[in-house]
Amino acid sequence: MFQNSSVSLVPEALDASGPGALRVGLIGTGVVGSGTCQVLTRNAELIAQRAGRPIRLVMAAARNLSKAAQVVGPDVALVADPWALVRHPDVDVVVEVMGGVGLAKDLVFEAIAHGKHVVTANKALLAEHGGEIFAAAEARGVVVAYEAAVAVSIPIIKALREGLAANRIHEVVGIVNGTSNFILSKMEEEGLDFAAALRLATELGYAEADPSFDVEGIDAAHKTALLAANAFGADVPFAHVHAQGITAVDPWDMACAHALGYRIKLLGLARQGMDAIEVRVHPALVPESHWLAQVKGSMNGIWVNADAAGPTFHYGAGAGSQTTASAVVADLIDVARTGTAWRVPHRAVQPGSIRRWPILPIGQVASRHYLRFELAGQPEWAARLPEWLQNHGIEVVHSVQLPHPDAPHHHALLVLTATLTGDAFAQRLQALAQMPGGPSPAACWRVEMA
Amino acid sequence: MFQNSSVSLVPEALDASGPGALRVGLIGTGVVGSGTCQVLTRNAELIAQRAGRPIRLVMAAARNLSKAAQVVGPDVALVADPWALVRHPDVDVVVEVMGGVGLAKDLVFEAIAHGKHVVTANKALLAEHGGEIFAAAEARGVVVAYEAAVAVSIPIIKALREGLAANRIHEVVGIVNGTSNFILSKMEEEGLDFAAALRLATELGYAEADPSFDVEGIDAAHKTALLAANAFGADVPFAHVHAQGITAVDPWDMACAHALGYRIKLLGLARQGMDAIEVRVHPALVPESHWLAQVKGSMNGIWVNADAAGPTFHYGAGAGSQTTASAVVADLIDVARTGTAWRVPHRAVQPGSIRRWPILPIGQVASRHYLRFELAGQPEWAARLPEWLQNHGIEVVHSVQLPHPDAPHHHALLVLTATLTGDAFAQRLQALAQMPGGPSPAACWRVEMA
Repeated sequence: MFQNSSVSLVPEALDASGPGALRVGLIGTGVVGSGTCQVLTRNAELIAQRAGRPIRLVMAAARNLSKAAQVVGPDVALVADPWALVRHPDVDVVVEVMGGVGLAKDLVFEAIAHGKHVVTANKALLAEHGGEIFAAAEARGVVVAYEAAVAVSIPIIKALREGLAANRIHEVVGIVNGTSNFILSKMEEEGLDFAAALRLATELGYAEADPSFDVEGIDAAHKTALLAANAFGADVPFAHVHAQGITAVDPWDMACAHALGYRIKLLGLARQGMDAIEVRVHPALVPESHWLAQVKGSMNGIWVNADAAGPTFHYGAGAGSQTTASAVVADLIDVARTGTAWRVPHRAVQPGSIRRWPILPIGQVASRHYLRFELAGQPEWAARLPEWLQNHGIEVVHSVQLPHPDAPHHHALLVLTATLTGDAFAQRLQALAQMPGGPSPAACWRVEMA
Repeated sequence: MFQNSSVSLVPEALDASGPGALRVGLIGTGVVGSGTCQVLTRNAELIAQRAGRPIRLVMAAARNLSKAAQVVGPDVALVADPWALVRHPDVDVVVEVMGGVGLAKDLVFEAIAHGKHVVTANKALLAEHGGEIFAAAEARGVVVAYEAAVAVSIPIIKALREGLAANRIHEVVGIVNGTSNFILSKMEEEGLDFAAALRLATELGYAEADPSFDVEGIDAAHKTALLAANAFGADVPFAHVHAQGITAVDPWDMACAHALGYRIKLLGLARQGMDAIEVRVHPALVPESHWLAQVKGSMNGIWVNADAAGPTFHYGAGAGSQTTASAVVADLIDVARTGTAWRVPHRAVQPGSIRRWPILPIGQVASRHYLRFELAGQPEWAARLPEWLQNHGIEVVHSVQLPHPDAPHHHALLVLTATLTGDAFAQRLQALAQMPGGPSPAACWRVEMA
């Protein structure tokens, strides 16, 4: 990403930032980096009053130096070589907002090795390599702070690690990918199909040129893994986190869900079981009356259930330039206030107490399910099906026939089931499909929060 | 409240609680005190893993020692004399959950003077005497932590002081008195009048024997003053906080508000103006689609608007035994993690930077208003009134006639106005009342969040 610049371009002593200032080096001057500069500049006086000392951007590394110069202003040493930044003796804390898990990872390790604190918005990096990174930071006595990695305007990492620290946390369920929630909202409100809603999201800047991380559930899975780590004080191997995105969601299912009193949302779920934890991302039906169902457009919302506090709900924007900077600078203020006496463990519990629960495979996760059958060619099944399901171990809690708006004589049969594991459910549906003329569901989604 | 016990009853050395433990002395073993004991006991291992050291209750002071013994268990030294507790050398931190502003205040000062940290749920004490108490704590190098003073399950003090510390906070608007919200919810859902809903709240344990602090808005005003202090880094003289409760809310106005798309809620509002701040509590119409309007029963919800993060919303239970303990113990964990290196200023900014903005008198606060006129005896005014208001400086944004359900021929005239200060509004309504036969509004409430 960065070209190497010759060492001679790196100033030896950085701009004197006043005695006692926290000196920040910024890697990446894009959307988040520029928001961070704006907030640090505009609220400089207030931030110093809160932190007890000034927080000064003294150095920035960027690919395009002339563009970056406009972002960071004249008093900041600009370098093309980020290695010079993470090693510079006048940088106290490195803000990594370049993204990616290659160079960013190496730079974070190098910053730690040089005794720098790190503030990062890089959810992919921490979800995939958090264990090594936190261990390195703990060994070196520095902090890796990452409030900006999840639901940026909502201080949810702080809420889990500090505000709710007295609690055994049972579950955290979040809408943590704004792009997906924007697309689902448009599909629901305007009846668009996924492709059309994605085009709209791209046009309006809610989706990136390559939206796959967002719409395939990977970004939400990164965030959910970090939420789980902090809720349960656990090591969460990312490879075991189930991630299914929204590409298969049909707007017709949204109408069907509505007829049953539900909305379809992309949820990130982290639950504490007896001997395992659940950490998974997939679309699910959520009752319309639930707080999570009220989260619209590109906003984020996170539901937490804890043994002493009970349920709490946390809502705000999950992306954006200054919105993300709010979390980045909050972490800088924490670092400025604490100095090296950081007191909050990286994953909520002291390193020696980190748990290594297995993550329950998705097939063993039990939940209620929603099924849609299209029985146009199989009228004999329309009346029989609920009873057949019931007799074959799929308990039907509710079933209803819904006429299709574009084909009034065509009815969909909607079924809400009782709780069953994914594997048991699939097995029984397979038995149905093997019956002579046995129908297959046209759609099947889990039901949550009901 | 407490009887003095002779010094001989106070053990000189308290139960050895293990090396490095944070040793807690508890004053008050009622609802919150017993919840705190339960959470500290049940989650002891988890709390130690999070805090980095055990947190042990070593001493408790209570009026009724035999009852208290059942609450705190056998390993805790029990005294009738709270002065012995706040002076005991083996107590590191005093948890004050006895309430009141008399003895509790003296005990908090004495604890500070003896170098103890203090954790308190006492909103009245801090809203009225926070300035002196925080100054004493800062001079002595100890902490007075009070997450439990506001919206207990929601870590909102932490969100304002730390999570959103990068932001200039424009407004904090909360439903922070569960008793009032429960009563208003029952009035709205079941059409009860205030007195009947209050009786129900008392029967169900949501209202105290003397409910005046809750229903007169005083409790909400205490909390709103603390929210304002932390949002704006301000000294908030409590005597200048306007507090109006819910006793004058008429269920008929709830129906009228609903016809306009609003709900009536008791709001605590803290807003940053140009040269002054607004800190006030009163019932107000809130659009039904707003998050605050969705807060039902005894729950709390807080809306924050900040310059970088944008709007965030925070929801959870605002009272209860273990719910409050969640906040008390979170503060204890903060103290245990930090030791004497406490890093977060008591009112969000360093003591030297505390602002002393004037609080805008309620008459000078501008807002939209809702008016209800009952024109049964003045039919000539029904058509004329909106125009009269318009011509006399009260701009009418919306007006509608609503038939009364019990008297179909009787119409109420509902008016929503444009923004106007309370004083200007009152003046113009007075002019109306002085007209021959000029009607007076039967109800007048501010409209917020619209």
